[in-house]
Amino acid sequence: MLEHIKIVLVETSHPGNIGAAARAMKNMGLQHLRLVAPRQFPHEQATSRATGGADVLAEAQCYPTLDAAVADTRLVLGTSARMRSLAWPTWDVREAASHVAARCGLGQVPIAIVFGREQTGLTNDELCRCHALIEIPANPDYSSLNIASACQVICYELRLASLAQSADSFKQLPDSPAAKTEELLGLYAHFETILYRLDFIHRTQPRLLMQRIKRMLNRAQLEHKEVQMIRGMLSAVAKTLDKIPPGNGKD
Amino acid sequence: MLEHIKIVLVETSHPGNIGAAARAMKNMGLQHLRLVAPRQFPHEQATSRATGGADVLAEAQCYPTLDAAVADTRLVLGTSARMRSLAWPTWDVREAASHVAARCGLGQVPIAIVFGREQTGLTNDELCRCHALIEIPANPDYSSLNIASACQVICYELRLASLAQSADSFKQLPDSPAAKTEELLGLYAHFETILYRLDFIHRTQPRLLMQRIKRMLNRAQLEHKEVQMIRGMLSAVAKTLDKIPPGNGKD
Repeated sequence: MLEHIKIVLVETSHPGNIGAAARAMKNMGLQHLRLVAPRQFPHEQATSRATGGADVLAEAQCYPTLDAAVADTRLVLGTSARMRSLAWPTWDVREAASHVAARCGLGQVPIAIVFGREQTGLTNDELCRCHALIEIPANPDYSSLNIASACQVICYELRLASLAQSADSFKQLPDSPAAKTEELLGLYAHFETILYRLDFIHRTQPRLLMQRIKRMLNRAQLEHKEVQMIRGMLSAVAKTLDKIPPGNGKD
Repeated sequence: MLEHIKIVLVETSHPGNIGAAARAMKNMGLQHLRLVAPRQFPHEQATSRATGGADVLAEAQCYPTLDAAVADTRLVLGTSARMRSLAWPTWDVREAASHVAARCGLGQVPIAIVFGREQTGLTNDELCRCHALIEIPANPDYSSLNIASACQVICYELRLASLAQSADSFKQLPDSPAAKTEELLGLYAHFETILYRLDFIHRTQPRLLMQRIKRMLNRAQLEHKEVQMIRGMLSAVAKTLDKIPPGNGKD
């Protein structure tokens, strides 16, 4: 299962942290590192901290945005807890690892684990790409782990889950594969367009409304077919909107 | 239980690792750091890597030998696996944490967890001070964790064992209560009505479509507020449908 996991670091400031994360991954048997707009990379501090994880670092791929980095993944888990306006579905690390193992068992891969910036974590828009957040049970007096340390703990639990997977339990097969992130982005955009046309989105705070919708849809962990079904409904609404005579658009 | 654990670092070469270990400890709620003949300490790299663990670092105590550092402890666990001549009793991290919890429950404290040198680990003489070794299940191709990363994983398992003792698992509260079944039934009926009016439900098998929708919505475990939000959208669609001139209802 570990070969299906992509570790994604978003706008990491300190190259040493990138190297340390690569080492942590290698120690736990993970190989795929994706970097979103790292401040300095490649960098000798990254190389020096990676030590035996040099191959992970050498194969790391850079992306301009988080959307690009997770486009092909079917489950996106974030590691930041800075969304103030909305509570986000949250798993502790061990739960998250067993969910990931279950998804891998069903072939619902690849899976992205996303780490935010050292100081500011993930933005709300970035959190909206995440199906759930992973929480490391930490000291409430000082809960902010170094990014490579957080990566170490999460990769450790993923490795244990992977080792335990051989003793597998029954799984219910879904009807169709989990939707890819790029499908979800298309769905969100479609949704937003229709809500504007319905004059629904103006009634309340537009950003917050879309965040609520994304959170709800992410929690459902939509399948490919379900995305198509919802888009079909949205198209039916659009067709209805097209039938309204021009003068009757607003109350 | 965490207050009874002493983390002992033996002849650490890189002061940055001492600071990072202090942070890892603080993040997991451990406070007592003991240093055996550190090469450079205090040092600005230690301070800089400790960040919010500065108090752990400030209170760290230095000892000339491992014997002196563990003299007052009742259980000593090592973290090196370099004893070639003798097989040593070994626990994996999770087992070790539950042993530590059990010992703490019996008042057999304090307990030392000992980390060896970055390059060479613990000497055989030092290993002989240990009641058992802790092993982190790692990639056999590269099993040597950074010392602060190893400290992070072990402190994480100790924290979980400590939380399990108090048997509380804290969850993030949702924005609003979960929807009641009667609210969901109202939502499904509303959905179905609108889908009929949109001519969406006739295109495929009606029962199967509604089943898919219910399954998807159930999986999202909707909150009360989210049900209201979706019903608001459905009402907006209904209002739009009302605006269509009678003759234009069907294509």
